[in-house]
Amino acid sequence: MTAFDFTAILADNVPPAAVPWAGYPAHNFTGGHNDREAIPVEGFIAALTKQLREKGRELATYYLEGGPQGMLELREFVARKLTRDRGAPTTPDQVLITSGSMQGLDLVNNALLNPGDTVIIEENTYGGMLNKLNRFGVDVVGAPLDGDGIRVDALEAILDDLAAKGVAPKYIYTIPTVQNPTGSVMPLERRRALLALARARGIPIFEDECYADLVWEGDRPPALRGLDDSGAVIQIGSFSKTLAPAIRLGYMVADWSILSRLLALKGDAGTGAIEQMLVAEYFGKHFDEHLAELKPRLRAKLDVMADAVEREFGTAAEFTRPKGGIFFWMRIPGVDTSALFKAANAEGFQFNPGAEWSTMGADAQDCLRLCFALATEDEIRAGVARLAEICRRETGIPARSGNVAHG
Amino acid sequence: MTAFDFTAILADNVPPAAVPWAGYPAHNFTGGHNDREAIPVEGFIAALTKQLREKGRELATYYLEGGPQGMLELREFVARKLTRDRGAPTTPDQVLITSGSMQGLDLVNNALLNPGDTVIIEENTYGGMLNKLNRFGVDVVGAPLDGDGIRVDALEAILDDLAAKGVAPKYIYTIPTVQNPTGSVMPLERRRALLALARARGIPIFEDECYADLVWEGDRPPALRGLDDSGAVIQIGSFSKTLAPAIRLGYMVADWSILSRLLALKGDAGTGAIEQMLVAEYFGKHFDEHLAELKPRLRAKLDVMADAVEREFGTAAEFTRPKGGIFFWMRIPGVDTSALFKAANAEGFQFNPGAEWSTMGADAQDCLRLCFALATEDEIRAGVARLAEICRRETGIPARSGNVAHG
Repeated sequence: MTAFDFTAILADNVPPAAVPWAGYPAHNFTGGHNDREAIPVEGFIAALTKQLREKGRELATYYLEGGPQGMLELREFVARKLTRDRGAPTTPDQVLITSGSMQGLDLVNNALLNPGDTVIIEENTYGGMLNKLNRFGVDVVGAPLDGDGIRVDALEAILDDLAAKGVAPKYIYTIPTVQNPTGSVMPLERRRALLALARARGIPIFEDECYADLVWEGDRPPALRGLDDSGAVIQIGSFSKTLAPAIRLGYMVADWSILSRLLALKGDAGTGAIEQMLVAEYFGKHFDEHLAELKPRLRAKLDVMADAVEREFGTAAEFTRPKGGIFFWMRIPGVDTSALFKAANAEGFQFNPGAEWSTMGADAQDCLRLCFALATEDEIRAGVARLAEICRRETGIPARSGNVAHG
Repeated sequence: MTAFDFTAILADNVPPAAVPWAGYPAHNFTGGHNDREAIPVEGFIAALTKQLREKGRELATYYLEGGPQGMLELREFVARKLTRDRGAPTTPDQVLITSGSMQGLDLVNNALLNPGDTVIIEENTYGGMLNKLNRFGVDVVGAPLDGDGIRVDALEAILDDLAAKGVAPKYIYTIPTVQNPTGSVMPLERRRALLALARARGIPIFEDECYADLVWEGDRPPALRGLDDSGAVIQIGSFSKTLAPAIRLGYMVADWSILSRLLALKGDAGTGAIEQMLVAEYFGKHFDEHLAELKPRLRAKLDVMADAVEREFGTAAEFTRPKGGIFFWMRIPGVDTSALFKAANAEGFQFNPGAEWSTMGADAQDCLRLCFALATEDEIRAGVARLAEICRRETGIPARSGNVAHG
């Protein structure tokens, strides 16, 4: 029997076939993984036991109390947290629980984008979002960043230029609080300026706060949504980075005028109830203590990574210490990190090449992103040494490391 | 501050805004709900406790062992079950775990459909699928059904007609084993005839087996995918109907040539790991005993419902006893069930009007679907009596019930 040929009937613009999973690399500095030791296994068991005994029988209906927007207890937690911590007064009816924040990206894109539309994103940004936008066939315009996030002056020039061409961008996508990948935190005045500019041009803001709970110290500026009183900001967040990425739970917050459209597009008959019960119960009781435990662990790993990069790469690497999060963004001038990835991957070492995390193409070719949350401190030291070794072998850079000159 | 107006920038073809959830109706005979008493709460707690102690720390990475296709233990369970119970030899690498079977529908539609394409579905079918197809802007052609499922002779005439117009349908979507909503089971010879016709025309089959584990008695014919050796069948299934709809877990099975495309489209960074751990552990050990407990409960409720409909509606209602599942499909000639829904809903009674579950428009206007799984047996008796009362008040039908003539 001849095998049926599906390739002949695929829809337009279907992405290339996935390749079978090869397992995690031995040296895993890619993706948004977290610290194994910070997973509160016994806390999860206690939370699930309590919730299941209380309302396990309600799993016989699609939704727990709260309906399609998500479990009411969990929405109440999100609303309390955003009101208290993010300067963004929020009620549970403004919250939509999503199956991971990536679903939030899909919902906003599906609600607002037609092929040929234009969107503004940060010139270095989340690679998953770039992939999704490319699939949509929209024009992606990167806004320049500095150490404080989007440069509003540069953005204004971009908007002027687009307006002169008759182009009205559909949104400005930004990660203002622990930017991915650069780790910057946009100061309050910059936030106000960004909002004022967006408002003047009638462009909504799509604010991604996936890492906002992981700022090392000091007062975080309020979320953009907290500083806006016109309902022009759609905010999304996640429990992946504070709790566990394998728990696929995120949230979106917006005025009902747009949230009702996003909800209508959700089309999945609800987000998994067991995971909602878990997070509502565990974070409802233990959010502060969990973060008080997690953040110092992550920060200590960052210190180890920064030290290791300085030791192994010396002046060959440039970086700015991230103000929070789980990522380390660095530049190795003269090194093509996409080529470096291939060599490193062949030896079981993975990172995110800069070109996949940027709108700048060649200009980000010498950047790379390392996630420092998953590896132990020893693994970080050994991993950075190994990366420097591979890099030197492939490119001659760094010429010197650990005070030893090579080549 | 003027509120930002998102309606001015919505994408084309965005569905109407959702309305705020009003809670479940007092008399809930709608949707795919299940029996509260059949939720194994303590079994869930034991399963989660074991899995979390064994591999809870792995939640720090996106995927459990098994990668983006889903937890290996769960894919192994699905493969064993389909091989043993559905006559469909399956290996774990052919299985993709999805966030509910609705995600499976989306993935297939996204992989295969362009606007303007044509698909074949059963003339009475799952309303959620109809909604999704309408959103896609495809031409939906309904294939006539009899008590054994799709009438292959009628389908052949439809395909001839389409071919004469130069139209090649993208797939034939069918629910052959406990059809939704009619509850029929397609016999083996009909299955072979359907496959032969589809093969001769070069059209793949999209087989939905969401209810296939809930056949009351007798040997179920093998899944279509088990009878096909050309890889032309994409099969999906769910744990909603056998376990709990609030657990959003389904699966798809297909040859890698198309599964690799579906996986590439999944784009959600994985399906919730906690729910996968739960189902892998609980069903891995207790699937047979769980179904042995669940099916008699559901069948007893069906008996109560059929008796109640006969008692309350008498000859005014027509129905064929479903061969499995959780749904009761009936016709009340002369009654517009969409209008009846409005009257019943105002009194807290919900069902699925036939027109929403059919391609036939006016021809299904006098049909309706009642889910009998959620309500208790007493609630079913009282509910059907109430429905008959509302129907009589609104339409004069049934003129007689409980041996009492009205009007």
